[in-house]
Parts: sequence; structure tokens; C-alpha cells
Amino acid sequence: MNIDMITAAADRLKGHVRHTPLLTSPALDAIAGRRVLVKPENLQHTGSFKFRGGWSAISALPPETLAKGVFAYSSGNHAQGVAMAAQSHNAPCVILMPADAPASKIAATKALGAEVVTYDRATDDRDAIGTAIAAERGLTLIKPFDNPQVIAGQGTVGLEIAADAAALGVTEADVLICCGGGGLASGIALALEARAPGLRPRPVEPEGFDDVTRSLVSGQRERNARTSGSLCDAIISPSPGELTFPIMSRLCGPGIVVSEDEALQAMALAFEHLKLVAEPGGAVALAAALFHAEELTGDTVICTISGGNVDAEVFQKSLIHAAQ
Amino acid sequence: MNIDMITAAADRLKGHVRHTPLLTSPALDAIAGRRVLVKPENLQHTGSFKFRGGWSAISALPPETLAKGVFAYSSGNHAQGVAMAAQSHNAPCVILMPADAPASKIAATKALGAEVVTYDRATDDRDAIGTAIAAERGLTLIKPFDNPQVIAGQGTVGLEIAADAAALGVTEADVLICCGGGGLASGIALALEARAPGLRPRPVEPEGFDDVTRSLVSGQRERNARTSGSLCDAIISPSPGELTFPIMSRLCGPGIVVSEDEALQAMALAFEHLKLVAEPGGAVALAAALFHAEELTGDTVICTISGGNVDAEVFQKSLIHAAQ
Repeated sequence: MNIDMITAAADRLKGHVRHTPLLTSPALDAIAGRRVLVKPENLQHTGSFKFRGGWSAISALPPETLAKGVFAYSSGNHAQGVAMAAQSHNAPCVILMPADAPASKIAATKALGAEVVTYDRATDDRDAIGTAIAAERGLTLIKPFDNPQVIAGQGTVGLEIAADAAALGVTEADVLICCGGGGLASGIALALEARAPGLRPRPVEPEGFDDVTRSLVSGQRERNARTSGSLCDAIISPSPGELTFPIMSRLCGPGIVVSEDEALQAMALAFEHLKLVAEPGGAVALAAALFHAEELTGDTVICTISGGNVDAEVFQKSLIHAAQ
Repeated sequence: MNIDMITAAADRLKGHVRHTPLLTSPALDAIAGRRVLVKPENLQHTGSFKFRGGWSAISALPPETLAKGVFAYSSGNHAQGVAMAAQSHNAPCVILMPADAPASKIAATKALGAEVVTYDRATDDRDAIGTAIAAERGLTLIKPFDNPQVIAGQGTVGLEIAADAAALGVTEADVLICCGGGGLASGIALALEARAPGLRPRPVEPEGFDDVTRSLVSGQRERNARTSGSLCDAIISPSPGELTFPIMSRLCGPGIVVSEDEALQAMALAFEHLKLVAEPGGAVALAAALFHAEELTGDTVICTISGGNVDAEVFQKSLIHAAQ
């Protein structure tokens, strides 16, 4: 993994990805006590940064591999990112989802042209089903974060941050990154190392799912006790990735852990002051910027909003905070 | 009014305004039956396009006039746009608001450095109070739409639409514009006339407040029976402006009228598919794009989202549609 893979991914994404802006709000600055620059990847195609990694991986496949198709395990943002990228490449796409995934997510993935195969979480062996389908049809697995081209695609977020921060005269700042398996954090970290070494990448996680934060302290890949049961489900993974952890370990500053309630408050403030819809997991970095000032350095902080795929019911929970 | 005033406004706004993108969503295209390009001015500073007109008018004032300060009548988006522009120019700013305006709007305007003077809608003469304050302090009134520099500022939305549509190869389309007094519609119309004559500006209004649509038919400035009582309050005005109507009459295609319920549905779809917060009045053009296909021409439609300053309570009304 190196910067050349990220710039190559950026070349392949050009004309297809949205270059998201860095947004500001005087009201958020006042709450945070420093300038806050927000990178809204919820405005990316399919509503999350995952489109970048999906496109990067699929566009790097040789034509004959691409023609056979791709598949992914996901009930969320990665599924939609891979499906839309595959559709644009005219590549068959199979997404393996738990049968109890929200109907809206299954429908959204199908609407992007993917074939959705469901399995029973309790009784079926997901990997066995996936391996069998892939072997039978010659499909290529696109992993959500432990894939170099996926990391390279997510790293294009970092290229944009580096360029846009420089244009604003920002050369030193913490860059807060919503973190699950670490694809986005490690990709951004590699990009910043090469392009903006004064910007320090820092993973942000929800309470109870702080595997990366603990791993950065211990120096080895720690696991979460649970892998479900959080409103921040979009960024929950069992442990840091095999490929992503060494990168984060080398390049990322200390992790930050926020509560679910802080994530909901950040969603409400993004609604009010940025006019953006953030999902709970996508709001953890903004929550850290606003409510963990004492853990940050410098007069400017940059934070990602990683996605906005949230049900109306959950969004309404956040609006209770807005009304207060 | 001419294109040179708009390009001059764009020069003054450069580096201060957000150039908002044209967003797309396959799901919205499917609902509309044609390609939908969305211009999200809810992402503009202060959450609406009004920042452009406020900045344009204030930045055009001679230094000695600017130093004395500006004032505006508004309980909504124009207040915040003028306040933020005045603050950035270090100009004193007084906003005259009804005493029963939502506390959140008064607070937001004060947070932008403005002095808010309230009056009683039932018993006070707003114009007399405004005239007295202005005379006493030498303040310059910034009208919400009947001001050439305000129209020029709103016209910069049209310059961006023309350039970004051309980059996408779109040379013919209806451009749907959320319309109250017509500042945005007339400004965009002038910009498109000069820069993209194949793009046809069309005002969109909420049911019961369709003064512009009726005026375009009759050829004279018609009035609304009511001037309040709509969820779409951000874009309600008694009648088309003196300056804006002749421009709209010469350049705009037929108006489109949408129901409040359609506006709420459009808000829900912007939430779901664009991850954007639109206010009811800001969603009427998207509602026309999605639900009035038979009144539109061509395979592409462009629509503005004019603002996103909506209370949590009203937003939740729209989410009921998202959950259905």
C-alpha cells in the first residue's frame, strides 16, 4: 500500500465520484471552541464513502474477471457502494445479506441492480454459502476493508482533504475519522502522510466498539466483546483489519471513543447547522469534534461524516435532541 | 438588470459563497421518469440562497454607507443571509422581526451578530418602526427581492447551474425554482438567458400562494388571498416584486403549483436519497420535478432546493412519509 495506489484510484474515480466539500458553520465552531471543517461523505453516491472503495476495487479488475462479476457480504453501506459501482461497470453483482436485514436496505441494494442472496444468521454458514456461489459463478469477492484497492479508494477522501485544507491555509489539524474495520482511516492516513503530514488522522469509535482505539494502545489487534447492538451499526466490526491495522498503527494518533448519545446529538446539530442527514455511525467523528475538545489539539479540527443511510425512526431519535 | 451585474456579484462573492454542486440519485430519476439534477442551496451559508443576495447587496455599498450599517425586515432566511454578510463586512446590522417569530430564528440571527428589534404584528406599524430606526442611525435597507443587487446575487445560482449543466452535456431542460417574491427566479432567469438559453426557468409555488403562476398567466401582478398559514412560509410573499415580475414575465416558462403534501413527500425523499435537510418551501421545486412530470419537458430536469431552515417538529412531519 502506498500513495501511488491512491492516486491511481483517484484517476479511476475521476468523473464518477463526488469531490465532497469541506463545510463550516459558525454555530459548530462556537460549540467546539475551534474551527470545525466537515467532510460530508454522506453526500457521496449511495450515501457513504463506501462507493469510493467499491469503485476502486471493481475498476481495477481485469476485463475478463469483471465480466464474471463480483460479490460482497454486507447489509449496509458497502453493499450499496459495490452494487452501484458494479452496475456502472456492467458487471454482475451478488450481495449476501442476512435475511433479517432491514427491508429498505435490501430494496436499495436491489434497486442498484444487484442480486441479493439472503441467509439465516442463526442456522446458515455465511462463508460457506458465499464461497459456493463465488466458485460456481466465478465471482470475485470485494471485502469491505481488507482489500488494498478498497483502502486505496477510501484514501481518495484523504487526497481531497489534503488539497482542500491547504487551500484554506490549514496545515496542522487533527483529522477525525469514523472507524469500523479501518478502511477509511488507513486510506486517509496514507494520503495525509504523503500530501499533508501536518494533518494527524485519528480514528473515532462508538462506546463498546472501541477495538481500534484499544488496539492502537496495546499494539495488537483487539476484539470487541459484541459485534451488534449499536445504533452505530454502520461502523461496527469485530476487530481492526489485517491490512488496515499496521497502517493505522504506524500513522494514526490516539483513538477517540464517543457515546451513542453524543452521536445522536451530533446528528441533531448536523441537521440544524449543516442541513445534512448523518447516520449514527457517520456522526461519531463530528461528535468527537464537538464534545471531546480536551482530547484534541490545535485551532482547527477536520472531521468526516462517513454516511447518511439512516432510517426515519432512528433519525427521529436524534431530532429529540434538536428540539431540546 | 443585466448579466454584467450578475457576473460582478459573482466576483464579489468569490471565495465567500459555496459553489453548490448538482446532485443526482438513481432513485429520484426513477420516480421522476427523467434525470433529476438537484441544486442544493440548503448547503449554502446560513442554510439558504439568501446569503448570496445579502452578500451581493452589502458588498456593493460604498464604504461610508457600509460603515453606518444595514437593516432588513425578515423573520427567516433573508435575515440570516443579511446578518452573516454584514458580520463578515464588519457592518452593523439591525433585523426587524415580529415578536412572535420562532425563538430559534431570533437566536440564529443574533448568533450571526445582528441586533434584533421586535415589533408586535397586531399593534405596531412595522414600516414606521423600520423607517425611524433607519433614519436615526443612517442604516441602509436591504429588501428581500426588490433590490437589483439582491437579484444579481441570487443570479449567481444561475451562473453555476449554467456552467455545471454544460459540463454534464445538458443544454436543454426545465429549471424549477422555488419562488416567493421572485428574487431567485428572476436572477436565475437572467443568468440562463445569457449563459444557457436552452435552459428554461420555471417558478414553483405552494398551493394557495401561487401569485407568480397566476401573474405569469394574466400578465399583471396578482396577489395572494393569504400571506401566512403555510408550512412553506420561507417562500411566501404577497405578490411578485416590482423589479422581479417584469423579468419573470419576459423570461420564465409557466409556473407550477404543488401541494403542501407533495412538498413534505419531496422532503422525505431528499432525506432518504440525497441525505439533505430541505425546508417545506425549499422542497417545492423538487416536488414539481418528482410529481408533476406531465407539466415538464425533456429528458432532464434541474431543480433548486432553496433552503433547509426547518424546525425538528416540521421535519418529523415529512419523515412520516419516509416511513410509509
